[in-house]
Amino acid sequence: MRVDIIISADYIDESKIENKIAVVIDMFRATSVIVTALNNGCKEIIPYLTIEETLEHAKNFNREYYILGGERKAVKIDGFDLSNSPLEYTEAIVKNKTVLMTTTNGTRTLTKSICAKRILISAMINAKAVAKKLLQINEDVVIINAGTNGNFSMDDYICGGYIINEMLKKDKNLELTDIAKTANMIYEGNQDILSYVKHATHYSVMKSLELDDDIEYCTRKSIIDIVPEYKNKKITCS
Amino acid sequence: MRVDIIISADYIDESKIENKIAVVIDMFRATSVIVTALNNGCKEIIPYLTIEETLEHAKNFNREYYILGGERKAVKIDGFDLSNSPLEYTEAIVKNKTVLMTTTNGTRTLTKSICAKRILISAMINAKAVAKKLLQINEDVVIINAGTNGNFSMDDYICGGYIINEMLKKDKNLELTDIAKTANMIYEGNQDILSYVKHATHYSVMKSLELDDDIEYCTRKSIIDIVPEYKNKKITCS
Repeated sequence: MRVDIIISADYIDESKIENKIAVVIDMFRATSVIVTALNNGCKEIIPYLTIEETLEHAKNFNREYYILGGERKAVKIDGFDLSNSPLEYTEAIVKNKTVLMTTTNGTRTLTKSICAKRILISAMINAKAVAKKLLQINEDVVIINAGTNGNFSMDDYICGGYIINEMLKKDKNLELTDIAKTANMIYEGNQDILSYVKHATHYSVMKSLELDDDIEYCTRKSIIDIVPEYKNKKITCS
Repeated sequence: MRVDIIISADYIDESKIENKIAVVIDMFRATSVIVTALNNGCKEIIPYLTIEETLEHAKNFNREYYILGGERKAVKIDGFDLSNSPLEYTEAIVKNKTVLMTTTNGTRTLTKSICAKRILISAMINAKAVAKKLLQINEDVVIINAGTNGNFSMDDYICGGYIINEMLKKDKNLELTDIAKTANMIYEGNQDILSYVKHATHYSVMKSLELDDDIEYCTRKSIIDIVPEYKNKKITCS
């Protein structure tokens, strides 16, 4: 069982992911939103690349059954119900609803990962459950970091390291590529995630928008046990 | 002054390197060969992508003035004078000679970096001199790791981290991208390079070829003070 990492959506290469189990990570904040919303009883999440596409598809739904969520430049989109803050996706708001979602990095990464055999969704908040699931599936894995605008993002990278670290606790014989080994080293040296992400470029953007509560929430480890899966253009609990 | 890293030759993107000072690293072993050969008095090194091209251009030189060096699959090329082992490029052999060189990852990376403003050559063995030179030049830097067959390579990555660490000793205000910060963290946590590279994929390939002496030599820190530069298709001391 081999584990590799792709460090940003810009570097997704079909040959590196086909026939593999992909794990998409955009911990600040799209995949934290997805995990939280599904854990709070939302029926499904449908990701879209553009705002226009999201609004166009919304016409197919009865207004009371869907929620429009997402961001541009980390800020709520005009006319949308919710931003990209996982804290807004409470049970009271999302239960039994379909979330139509568009974000800058996360939905683009999901769309580009479509040739993988399966696509699981991870963030810090459900990483242990993802590690367990990957060991159960027992096939080659490629962890795909959304990154930020095509660039490597420290937050997504350490999240991949955390998943690998959890997998290694159960299976010492994982075959790790150099980039996967390095992610595990970074996690081992920085297990206090909140302190670590203070050095990340993404952190300063969120801090400038006063998203401190989101930062704190998204850096919590394995507080949720579900593993969302992207399949037939929808994300549900696998 | 901004410092970024590109993690393999496959990921070189013109927009990320134009107008910047590029630092090409292939520490196992092409850039260690280049630094060593020039330090031992070789006149210049001319890198070529293919064996055929190397042999074709060799016809322009008088046989006594040039040396054919390089590798395929880490092994000496049939009919060439030297392999890709820096230990072979002694003063007795290379002094005042032109080295015509072709390697799998290193020469490809150099060729792909051509749109940078300047291209410096680094390995562990001359990293401190490179750091000093970059601070003198005082322009944005992109460290380009050759990687191995298009993949991230732990050895090249820690070498970039070492250069950054040396730069930070003199200039605390460097603007580091997330991938550059992470390389520095890896270096700080693994300053015994020989122990660290034992985890690298490249290490096991070299070990299987009994290249222990090369591994030991290439992981020495800053034993050489020169900074080679690639300009007008030739590498000389800048």
